[in-house]
Amino acid sequence: MLKKIPLFEENTFHESHFMKLLAHESPYFKIINFNFKAGQELPVHFHDIDGQLSIVILEGTGEFMGKDNSVIPAKPGDLLISDISEPHGVRAITDLRALVTIAPPI
Amino acid sequence: MLKKIPLFEENTFHESHFMKLLAHESPYFKIINFNFKAGQELPVHFHDIDGQLSIVILEGTGEFMGKDNSVIPAKPGDLLISDISEPHGVRAITDLRALVTIAPPI
Repeated sequence: MLKKIPLFEENTFHESHFMKLLAHESPYFKIINFNFKAGQELPVHFHDIDGQLSIVILEGTGEFMGKDNSVIPAKPGDLLISDISEPHGVRAITDLRALVTIAPPI
Repeated sequence: MLKKIPLFEENTFHESHFMKLLAHESPYFKIINFNFKAGQELPVHFHDIDGQLSIVILEGTGEFMGKDNSVIPAKPGDLLISDISEPHGVRAITDLRALVTIAPPI
């Protein structure tokens, strides 16, 4: 069966922390929508396991973050690919919606 | 290493057919950006194999299509989950950008 999740309606923003919506989880992948108010961030992190993740910006601007304080500008339609074991994070400059897909799911 | 693909810059639209950009392929997933001019579509199809796919609308409006001519409205931020073996397709009402993730990759 087809399942639709209208992310812009199902997830909101919060003034004091980012909002995380688990949109889907299966043996194949895990899909999470993060909403950040301007200035909020998902700090750089990594897990020492196999797999990759993608982050696509749905709305707003910000920065993808990597190791050694590296930053990559992020705007709508920008897609980031990272190994799960590679340091990665996201910071919002304006209010920002991002969709993260992790395969295999962790 | 982090890899960024700026989809809105790397993929365009074509008057006579949809445009398909293979953004990423790995043992974990395959990520494809489809751009449709208004009226173009990816017809309903399926493959009889294990796995799932997601489709998220990045820009524009249209419809997700399923079996028996079923349709589900599609707008920015709408995420569709489908088994690979389930009939699915996309039709554009306005010019539309969609991102498809397939796991495992096929």
